[in-house]
Amino acid sequence: MGTNEELIEYLREDIRACKARNDKVIMLWTANTEMFLLPEINALDDLEDRIKNNNPLPSSVLYCIAAILEGVTYLNGSPQNTFHPAIVELAKKNNSFLGGNDFKSGQTRFKTIMSDFLIGSGLRLASVVSYNHLGNNDGKNLQEDKCFQSKKISKAGVLDDAIKGNDILYPEEDGKNKIDHEVVIKYVPFVGDSKRALDEYSSQIFLNGTNTISSYNICEDSLLAVPLMYDMIVLAELFTRMEIDEEKLGPVLSYLSFFFKAPITNHNEYIINSFSRQRETLTNLLKVASGILPDDTTLLSFKF
Amino acid sequence: MGTNEELIEYLREDIRACKARNDKVIMLWTANTEMFLLPEINALDDLEDRIKNNNPLPSSVLYCIAAILEGVTYLNGSPQNTFHPAIVELAKKNNSFLGGNDFKSGQTRFKTIMSDFLIGSGLRLASVVSYNHLGNNDGKNLQEDKCFQSKKISKAGVLDDAIKGNDILYPEEDGKNKIDHEVVIKYVPFVGDSKRALDEYSSQIFLNGTNTISSYNICEDSLLAVPLMYDMIVLAELFTRMEIDEEKLGPVLSYLSFFFKAPITNHNEYIINSFSRQRETLTNLLKVASGILPDDTTLLSFKF
Amino acid sequence: MGTNEELIEYLREDIRACKARNDKVIMLWTANTEMFLLPEINALDDLEDRIKNNNPLPSSVLYCIAAILEGVTYLNGSPQNTFHPAIVELAKKNNSFLGGNDFKSGQTRFKTIMSDFLIGSGLRLASVVSYNHLGNNDGKNLQEDKCFQSKKISKAGVLDDAIKGNDILYPEEDGKNKIDHEVVIKYVPFVGDSKRALDEYSSQIFLNGTNTISSYNICEDSLLAVPLMYDMIVLAELFTRMEIDEEKLGPVLSYLSFFFKAPITNHNEYIINSFSRQRETLTNLLKVASGILPDDTTLLSFKF
Amino acid sequence: MGTNEELIEYLREDIRACKARNDKVIMLWTANTEMFLLPEINALDDLEDRIKNNNPLPSSVLYCIAAILEGVTYLNGSPQNTFHPAIVELAKKNNSFLGGNDFKSGQTRFKTIMSDFLIGSGLRLASVVSYNHLGNNDGKNLQEDKCFQSKKISKAGVLDDAIKGNDILYPEEDGKNKIDHEVVIKYVPFVGDSKRALDEYSSQIFLNGTNTISSYNICEDSLLAVPLMYDMIVLAELFTRMEIDEEKLGPVLSYLSFFFKAPITNHNEYIINSFSRQRETLTNLLKVASGILPDDTTLLSFKF
Repeated sequence: MGTNEELIEYLREDIRACKARNDKVIMLWTANTEMFLLPEINALDDLEDRIKNNNPLPSSVLYCIAAILEGVTYLNGSPQNTFHPAIVELAKKNNSFLGGNDFKSGQTRFKTIMSDFLIGSGLRLASVVSYNHLGNNDGKNLQEDKCFQSKKISKAGVLDDAIKGNDILYPEEDGKNKIDHEVVIKYVPFVGDSKRALDEYSSQIFLNGTNTISSYNICEDSLLAVPLMYDMIVLAELFTRMEIDEEKLGPVLSYLSFFFKAPITNHNEYIINSFSRQRETLTNLLKVASGILPDDTTLLSFKF
Repeated sequence: MGTNEELIEYLREDIRACKARNDKVIMLWTANTEMFLLPEINALDDLEDRIKNNNPLPSSVLYCIAAILEGVTYLNGSPQNTFHPAIVELAKKNNSFLGGNDFKSGQTRFKTIMSDFLIGSGLRLASVVSYNHLGNNDGKNLQEDKCFQSKKISKAGVLDDAIKGNDILYPEEDGKNKIDHEVVIKYVPFVGDSKRALDEYSSQIFLNGTNTISSYNICEDSLLAVPLMYDMIVLAELFTRMEIDEEKLGPVLSYLSFFFKAPITNHNEYIINSFSRQRETLTNLLKVASGILPDDTTLLSFKF
Repeated sequence: MGTNEELIEYLREDIRACKARNDKVIMLWTANTEMFLLPEINALDDLEDRIKNNNPLPSSVLYCIAAILEGVTYLNGSPQNTFHPAIVELAKKNNSFLGGNDFKSGQTRFKTIMSDFLIGSGLRLASVVSYNHLGNNDGKNLQEDKCFQSKKISKAGVLDDAIKGNDILYPEEDGKNKIDHEVVIKYVPFVGDSKRALDEYSSQIFLNGTNTISSYNICEDSLLAVPLMYDMIVLAELFTRMEIDEEKLGPVLSYLSFFFKAPITNHNEYIINSFSRQRETLTNLLKVASGILPDDTTLLSFKF
Repeated sequence: MGTNEELIEYLREDIRACKARNDKVIMLWTANTEMFLLPEINALDDLEDRIKNNNPLPSSVLYCIAAILEGVTYLNGSPQNTFHPAIVELAKKNNSFLGGNDFKSGQTRFKTIMSDFLIGSGLRLASVVSYNHLGNNDGKNLQEDKCFQSKKISKAGVLDDAIKGNDILYPEEDGKNKIDHEVVIKYVPFVGDSKRALDEYSSQIFLNGTNTISSYNICEDSLLAVPLMYDMIVLAELFTRMEIDEEKLGPVLSYLSFFFKAPITNHNEYIINSFSRQRETLTNLLKVASGILPDDTTLLSFKF
């Protein structure tokens, strides 16, 4: 198997070989979910010690280090915590770029639009229950409790900014600043790659009434994921070349949030999960980059 | 019953009596759906002739004329075509305000967010089937085929701007610029005011795959509608007082589109049905009115 | 096109040609739904006059007459009323056999098991709403209002015996001897042969509570129908050879009820729609025919 | 707390006090689910030793022993394994009666009818996924993993006899003698006693097609359970008085299977889960007891 350093070097050689044959190389992690690595590796020193002392490191971390050292952008399509603070620091030091985490193709993406819809309509979303099952290799792997934990963490935060952004519906003082939220994933071989998502959204409304929406979604998991990969690679590549006031966007490419279940940013206090807001942010950034005035959507310019 | 003129005068007296007791009067039509009145009354002359000649006019038109002549804002919560071109002209002439049509509380509102979601994710929404049933008086009235036609027309247009705004997914040349779209409403006494909506959204995706979402919604019809009425009355009242460059917003208060299934505007070529865009338009107008810079959502101001 | 008599003769020739090449011939109508023919043709004389006088007759009636005259069993897989009393009489006179009406493959079959389940559990099923859409030729044809009427009639009666068989839950005196029941079929080209059924079953339970079940079914229409055709042909052929006390079972093969939405029998007062009862009737008849004692399901024989 | 013997004596006193005030006493366990007690207590000696040696015993076992010793019928409405072989033996020795296990009111009952429906229609049910959540105390208790195990075991066996009874669809040799089956229960406080069940039934059909049914059920848990309790108490009381050839039915009242998720019998090789078969067994036993000939459902008696 080799030492950490040998493994990293081996991966770097691969990347260099790939570079020799292509104009541009971007690394996208689509392998199965790994377990969460705890505690997080915070200091760069600590990371470097672990590499040197040959402490076991997850595959995704080794790949990511190799990519950073080769100046190749690394996108994380799985939920595990590859991007430890020390990794982000390493990327910064090497002027490299990161994007993640965990492709947002189906149920979670739907959840972000449902919270846009319900909370945006003034209804107090009170419980969200998300069941899903699939029979492909990803489903099989998620049976492992440790891997499912990664997924669960990645899926859980998606309603947080909706709650924080609306303290009329979710007042802190009354203990009402939460949504009952459950996420379940099961491995059901028969359904194969055809993923099923069964959700229920319950909202408290006027006069203590309830609005209940139950949804059922069937879709080939891969057919949703692949176009996302294309989009994020094309955009990630563009973003690595963009500058604002002569400053690069990195190391974290937070404008890719639209594509990720658990988006990370360079400013942890500002994570957006809202579907419509993420989409607009992306669209308007591209407008500005093309020299078009971003739409302030007031329609006032249209009017006069 | 009296002549048209007597009826209008009778309604105007009521409005004046109401004005005497209140600071501000706004008229909101929440009565049952009327049949569509065809052909539309286009010229103001024609309308005035019909009034004088005592041609039968729908109740909603009589109420609306009374409101206009008394300078009272008229909001139409039902799908019938009260706002004939001649009525809009009358409102303009009298510096009065109109808003409509048809409260958007449930299934149609959901539809606008679903098209935001699916088309906004790059999926080609290909068919939308919307079934709903309810057992209240509104449901009973919609059994009448002529009234249902009003509803059907009001519900049908909601996907039009999504198609028009995206000619990559809906290219005109290939005959693919349409979505199969069905709307059904049934009267089922047992369920009472607890309206049920069963929808199916099918999208064509990568490699000719299909993404299918079926949803089931239960909600008390009235509990969704009443808060909308409050919101639209409060905002309508505010909008009647707003001016942009010393010009009033009317006669049609198009910024109320967020609340209506078939929004009308002063510029027919520009009707927005997208939930997130309608919401943002409203929010940003209020920001501008308060002297706050509307958010261009690029996050660039945050970044630097 | 020819006269009625010529058309019938033409079809009889076809049947004879088919007989010449095969051991046994059975005719199964799977063509599109025809409109209901009203008034029903009651007297055999009347039917014979219409044939002679060249009054227009539906295709299915012409085919059925040809089959009867050739002694070929005729099974009706569509909802139209081919089996007028005069046709049944003609079959009796010719010792021929009939079976029908309308294949029960999907939603209606599900409905018979749901009423078994709910009413059999002591819950008062109070409303059943059945929406379905499909995009195949059958769906297109059912757009025609007259053809849909045939379907609607065929689908409507399925709960009748459940109500009649349970006057504790459905007492006549209180006007509670009915279930709100709606059936809707829509043509949605995009879904093709993949039929969608969206149902809702609401039951009144203890303390005036409600039990609500919403279901969503996707299935290729043809893949459900074809095996039914095989089964009913095999069984119909067997039944034409069975005798009880030297008496044949016909002219109507009511033991085929399991396969039909609107089963007809030789004893109109005794029509069974219950899925489990139909199935048991069929199974136990086959047991008796094989010389096996039918199961009385008391388990007492097992016990002692 | 007292010794086992003191606790049992205390409970017996309660039962005697209850008997003094009533004609008949039946004990029905509706308390929360306990954890599974493993290993099972097989020998009566072993049970008696545990009582004497004051080994900890689950509450339900103590209640059950007290009931048996007082000659009171004990019905187990929860999934835990109260009825250890030694307990059944104790009941036999004391001519006492037992019935169980675990009320079958909602999702599991639905599952037994769905397998009747699908397999009975000749479709190969291939996967069953059952999600449910509730917010009452029962839901809270089931969060405890050990208690959920009891529930999961009780819910899992329900498809076993359907598979065993049909080796054409489920041939042992091809490894196809199984159904993918998942059961999930979550505690979601917001929904309270209004239990939600989201199921998916997938079947393999003709030409390798798939039939998919997704269902969504809302019902107050208690309103379904209470009438079941009445029914089973009334029937249990009757069954304790019934004799067949001067022999009592006990100790296990297996004719109560209709009401239980994991029915137990005196003949372990013969457990029926099919809804329609359980119902018929019950109905026909009552007919026989009343001197009515049970229906063999061939309709032949009707015919001649």
